[in-house]
Amino acid sequence: MNSKFIVIEGLEGAGKTTAIQTVVETLKQYGLSDLTLTREPGGTPLAEKLRRLIKQGIEGEVLTDKAEVLMLYAARVQLVENIIKPALSRGTWVIGDRHDLSSQAYQGGGRGIDQHLLASLREAALGDFQPDLTLYLDLPPEVGLQRARERGELDRIEKESLDFFDRTRTRYLELVAKDSSIKTIDATQPLENVQDNIRSTLLHWLKEQETVA
Amino acid sequence: MNSKFIVIEGLEGAGKTTAIQTVVETLKQYGLSDLTLTREPGGTPLAEKLRRLIKQGIEGEVLTDKAEVLMLYAARVQLVENIIKPALSRGTWVIGDRHDLSSQAYQGGGRGIDQHLLASLREAALGDFQPDLTLYLDLPPEVGLQRARERGELDRIEKESLDFFDRTRTRYLELVAKDSSIKTIDATQPLENVQDNIRSTLLHWLKEQETVA
Repeated sequence: MNSKFIVIEGLEGAGKTTAIQTVVETLKQYGLSDLTLTREPGGTPLAEKLRRLIKQGIEGEVLTDKAEVLMLYAARVQLVENIIKPALSRGTWVIGDRHDLSSQAYQGGGRGIDQHLLASLREAALGDFQPDLTLYLDLPPEVGLQRARERGELDRIEKESLDFFDRTRTRYLELVAKDSSIKTIDATQPLENVQDNIRSTLLHWLKEQETVA
Repeated sequence: MNSKFIVIEGLEGAGKTTAIQTVVETLKQYGLSDLTLTREPGGTPLAEKLRRLIKQGIEGEVLTDKAEVLMLYAARVQLVENIIKPALSRGTWVIGDRHDLSSQAYQGGGRGIDQHLLASLREAALGDFQPDLTLYLDLPPEVGLQRARERGELDRIEKESLDFFDRTRTRYLELVAKDSSIKTIDATQPLENVQDNIRSTLLHWLKEQETVA
């Protein structure tokens, strides 16, 4: 089986970190141990610099929605071209903490950036590159934000209004409904059930890949 | 007369800095003294951070052409939305050291980024915002690069090949030919003649604007 790009998506506090651990363990138990973890925005020195600018903003300067999305795509191009594609082509599996779907949901849904514009940016930056599998951890924003708050200081994006996250989740759900490579995990369940769901969804998908390949 | 956005464009070593001084003096003699100078990429704290990343690159990381152009547009959006548009709307004239035409010429011509992609980026980032007047200082790249070298250390972009700058100049000339708001100044002439040309071109244009407005 060729190496694959698997992405974990979801709102703040959805449990992405634990989900990534579960994915890694499941892949290892399946005999796949050549793995790389990425996070977005970030994952290269330049992309991490852009991440800080995006997450923290600049004292005294309004970060426009358009500049934010352009920087997100700049970071994504660096990560895809310099890390993800080379890893995949040498046979390493890549597990991503967020990818393009986040921009579609947060910038498209949350910020209300025009879908046509987002589609051209995506096309321009990534062409037809996309994850092989996305696990979307779904939960109502109130629940996720409560968890994120308990974790500590919120960044520029985590401080957005509940409405923003409602729009973001709605866009996630719309996109999930249109794309069979995205599997939804109910993240409101007890942790153990979430992990079980991730494990069984991933194993089922891995077996499908064996028969396809 | 409403305040205007005037841009100086051209290759490295074309004499943009002196040209800007000439433009400022001419505008002041004309009675226009509420002026703001901008430079691109840059001109806001965030855009200046992006400028450094673009000009110096990141040690050990390839800066992809796509990330470069996305960062250029992110910087441009910040400058246009936070500085240029507010200045123009309060009656301040803006004189820009480079603007969008540079991306069309350097990234489109020099780097060979697809024109359709550049057009969508431009449309997405700027909509129909554009300079009222552009003065393009034209000269063969050999001449400009020699001058830039004499000035000292070259940055990441100034170190590009002569072919790169040939393609950049060709694209400048193609764009100038299609847009009557861009006036070409022959920058191979002696400095005094260049300044005279700038002065008379600008005065002629200012008088036209009076009759239009």
